[in-house]
Amino acid sequence: MRSAEEATVAAAPDAREAFVAAFFDELQRSGVDHVCVSPGSRSTPLAVAAARCSGLRCWSHLDERSAGFFALGLARASAAPVALVCTSGTAAANYLPAVVEAHYARVPLLVLTADRPPELREWGAGQTIDQLALYGRHVRRFVELPVPEPGPGPLRYARSLACRAVAEAMGPPAGPVHLNWPLREPLEPVSDRHGAVDFAAGDTLAGVGRPSRPYAEVRIATPRVSEEQRSELVALVRGHERGVVVCGPAPPVPGLAQAVAELARKAGWPMLADATSQLRRGPHCANGPVIAHADLLLRDAEFAAGHAPEVVLRVGDTPVSKAQRLWLEAAPPKHLLLVDPDGGWNEPSHLASGVLRVDPLTLCRDLARELGEPRESEWLRSMLAADRIVGRAVTRAISAESALLEPRAVQELARLLPDVALLYVSNSMPVRDLDAFLPACERPLTVLCNRGANGIDGVLSSALGAAAAGRGPVVLLTGDLAFLHDLGGLLAAKRHDLSLTIVLLNNDGGGIFSFLPIAEYGEAVDFEDLFRVSHGLDFSHAAALFGMDYSRVQSWPEFRAAVERSMASVRTSLIELPVERDANVQHFRELVRVASLALSSGAMR
Amino acid sequence: MRSAEEATVAAAPDAREAFVAAFFDELQRSGVDHVCVSPGSRSTPLAVAAARCSGLRCWSHLDERSAGFFALGLARASAAPVALVCTSGTAAANYLPAVVEAHYARVPLLVLTADRPPELREWGAGQTIDQLALYGRHVRRFVELPVPEPGPGPLRYARSLACRAVAEAMGPPAGPVHLNWPLREPLEPVSDRHGAVDFAAGDTLAGVGRPSRPYAEVRIATPRVSEEQRSELVALVRGHERGVVVCGPAPPVPGLAQAVAELARKAGWPMLADATSQLRRGPHCANGPVIAHADLLLRDAEFAAGHAPEVVLRVGDTPVSKAQRLWLEAAPPKHLLLVDPDGGWNEPSHLASGVLRVDPLTLCRDLARELGEPRESEWLRSMLAADRIVGRAVTRAISAESALLEPRAVQELARLLPDVALLYVSNSMPVRDLDAFLPACERPLTVLCNRGANGIDGVLSSALGAAAAGRGPVVLLTGDLAFLHDLGGLLAAKRHDLSLTIVLLNNDGGGIFSFLPIAEYGEAVDFEDLFRVSHGLDFSHAAALFGMDYSRVQSWPEFRAAVERSMASVRTSLIELPVERDANVQHFRELVRVASLALSSGAMR
Repeated sequence: MRSAEEATVAAAPDAREAFVAAFFDELQRSGVDHVCVSPGSRSTPLAVAAARCSGLRCWSHLDERSAGFFALGLARASAAPVALVCTSGTAAANYLPAVVEAHYARVPLLVLTADRPPELREWGAGQTIDQLALYGRHVRRFVELPVPEPGPGPLRYARSLACRAVAEAMGPPAGPVHLNWPLREPLEPVSDRHGAVDFAAGDTLAGVGRPSRPYAEVRIATPRVSEEQRSELVALVRGHERGVVVCGPAPPVPGLAQAVAELARKAGWPMLADATSQLRRGPHCANGPVIAHADLLLRDAEFAAGHAPEVVLRVGDTPVSKAQRLWLEAAPPKHLLLVDPDGGWNEPSHLASGVLRVDPLTLCRDLARELGEPRESEWLRSMLAADRIVGRAVTRAISAESALLEPRAVQELARLLPDVALLYVSNSMPVRDLDAFLPACERPLTVLCNRGANGIDGVLSSALGAAAAGRGPVVLLTGDLAFLHDLGGLLAAKRHDLSLTIVLLNNDGGGIFSFLPIAEYGEAVDFEDLFRVSHGLDFSHAAALFGMDYSRVQSWPEFRAAVERSMASVRTSLIELPVERDANVQHFRELVRVASLALSSGAMR
Repeated sequence: MRSAEEATVAAAPDAREAFVAAFFDELQRSGVDHVCVSPGSRSTPLAVAAARCSGLRCWSHLDERSAGFFALGLARASAAPVALVCTSGTAAANYLPAVVEAHYARVPLLVLTADRPPELREWGAGQTIDQLALYGRHVRRFVELPVPEPGPGPLRYARSLACRAVAEAMGPPAGPVHLNWPLREPLEPVSDRHGAVDFAAGDTLAGVGRPSRPYAEVRIATPRVSEEQRSELVALVRGHERGVVVCGPAPPVPGLAQAVAELARKAGWPMLADATSQLRRGPHCANGPVIAHADLLLRDAEFAAGHAPEVVLRVGDTPVSKAQRLWLEAAPPKHLLLVDPDGGWNEPSHLASGVLRVDPLTLCRDLARELGEPRESEWLRSMLAADRIVGRAVTRAISAESALLEPRAVQELARLLPDVALLYVSNSMPVRDLDAFLPACERPLTVLCNRGANGIDGVLSSALGAAAAGRGPVVLLTGDLAFLHDLGGLLAAKRHDLSLTIVLLNNDGGGIFSFLPIAEYGEAVDFEDLFRVSHGLDFSHAAALFGMDYSRVQSWPEFRAAVERSMASVRTSLIELPVERDANVQHFRELVRVASLALSSGAMR
């Protein structure tokens, strides 16, 4: 097979066209379905090759920063690597925020940047910057490509490189891979310069090989804990009643919820499930050990002190809840075991006593199998009872509040969203709202959040990318600052006819700052201007600009109607909830008090 | 003096507060007037210190990418260094595009990024990314600060560091300096935590020293060419009639235009003045050797071939005109002398035979003094005559065209703008339009453009930053894609009540691509979607969102009225010129033909 291909290659009219075509063909065979392409001249060979590769879907994006986050959201929602193509210069620099997020969140991206060839770099040529290692240590690998020469060798390289780049983006750990392409003029296809373009020669070339399989296949063996390690862990679980499984932010993994719940049940330990862990909701919640309100429970000093665990088994990334971190720091557990198959050590309290480099699904199944019958545990019973009491009290208080405040927005959404929905949540307050107030439930809900670097940037584009995956209705819960930070990203909704429901919690500025001590300093530190960034914008104009449906709701029935209308629509809708920020801060604090009261009246502390 | 300060310092309630206050105080004494601050929690100590430093003006910006470009435009228009403050995480990553532009354009920026302290980095703490050397080789210096300790030593360091950072940002070459600040909790001021804040202690501390002078003053000697070098250059000028002075993009330098014109007159050489060189317009144009239409002249193959120079003396950066580059490449001059005081070698044709590391103003004055009387030169006369003939013919053809097309927009603006105006022009087509069609004139016009990396990003924010300098009316000439790329940047216009006139050439997509060969490939390469990025937006909604005045003009009289109205207003106005792109491409090409015809009928080739 390879020799036939090589023969075709030798006859190709242009070495670069063949090289680039082979590369994109191989990307697609290796599992890449989507390419986000930004406009440019230098990147013409890459854009043309992506457009003509039949298995690839191209998404055109003006702004490379938004393109980066769109690719991130698409990769997250489709659980597959996504490629990015941009021209040279600051275009490539605009990818950095999304690349950083992808690095820390372990999302596979293939970042393909066009560049001038070496002889034009640092000689004053236009749109030419230093793109070598532009993303620093935030990529799995940086590759500076050669200018392709004709012949079979370069084609073998093109195909191998595509396979390798995808494999390295898939990890472990998954993340971005940066390929920098030196491209000389002419940039347009040379195979047929005038009139209708005949790409048949190139297509044939790219199609040769092993049509349904990648040129090189990468197989990764699954690490398992040894029998000895397993026994040790089982003994540790058996030896400690006061254990918890902390479930931090993580992508959806089929079967993981059941496996963790099964292990927790057998250990007699509660699962403290972060709202973004994918483990707070789903069938495993039926009589399961899922704690939804850890953040509220552990804000109660007495409860927290009375429920210090001896063992913590953590899966997923650092949890959202600060109360949970302070709880463990206040009374460090004897054992804190961090499960991270990818070599991470994401435990900022420096309390980890063991790091398990193993896939959590495999580990939980292995341990659960060995543990036998579920432990009868007062510890688990009391934690679950406390969670239920707090959950009921807080939900009652939330429902009694008819003003448009954030906790109820979370609970209303939780009721409204169908099982197949995907909720993208912004950082800053929305994810904290969600973590504090999203009840556990047997109906599943996929929750995505950019918890790699926890930025408020790129949120609209991330959610639009998730919508582009076409896996079900996507709802974005965002504040107004995150919305504004990525405003231009909405262009993609219009140009690509995407369907997204945007729930905009508008408190006219960064509501989170009102929770911080700096809020007390007021004018002395120019609080409104430098911290809150109040703006007074009327967002209906943003909706009009980008052709979105718009409603500014005044009541919860209106909110529900708007969300239902939007989810039934194929368009993107902006649903604005005007939130009175001071009332919201008070309400949040009141709910923390409600939780405490419920605990004390239920004698749960 | 220093011992008094040290005594005060020792008594300071908090080492970090004193350290940060001293640093900002020193920034201000060293010539920094403006700080662009983006919201965040980790950056609280920096934001608070900036806000309370009486000599500093703080500009609050939501989006760090826009903040970066705002600072860039402000630094350009005020010819002074500007500081940036952001929180940790992707916030810092969003500065990269502006940092890259500032690096290549040699604009002084002080990039102050908050970070978690070392013990929390790469341990899964929130909003924590690898910020060390985040901007790679695009900064003059990267400094990782220590966590400040109490005592006089750290304070001396804080003040010295501020002086040094400013000095290094000022160059030569000027550019960005990155300071990364590890900051531990508590982040709010500790000196008076409750009630009204008394910053007097901190202020006194920061005010001690030498009030009107920086702690350390940096003095840079001016390099001069030696007598021998000067004689050699003078001999070279005298020995060659066929010489040109190429004036590329450069910031305004008082006296430079007169000095270059004087040298050119004495040498008998024309000045090929790029539209962004600051040398095309001004009093030196009176009977001066300024060529305005080099781009059009040199598109005429016969003229170009007949006017190959023997010597090129270049000041400024790489010129915008591609025709000019091809002209020199077609018949390389015997001598191409690049004047660059900063160590650059921005000559992508690799034709430089000499690089002069000397300030152009000094050089031109030194050479002109020695050259004596102006040379009577047929070469210069014929070049100037050709320029005038082409200028008249093209201007006539432009005026005869009543449709709303780009060349006339340039010429109408040139007539409308007062001497004190600053024209910010976007990359891609607008700067090329300006370079081709802006006539020379005795009235000055400052033209700024992001020619460091030639990106279309950050254009609105750059122009708003220039407007914030308050040096006169600022007009931005931009295309629709550049406008959209930085849409969110308009928030600053509203929040800071800035006065800017935005002239938006709207041809519904990237008009420049219609000039490129790829345009001929049409649907075969998905041209409309992947290259042009057509969008069909109604920009009146963008104006409404950000509270700008808006007019979509239908004729030139309307255009003139709108520009005049806007320049008289204290608000920001959006003036949209709908441009029919195919007609524009044809018109541009027709004007190139008009120029050629004028040359041949005037027997100028």
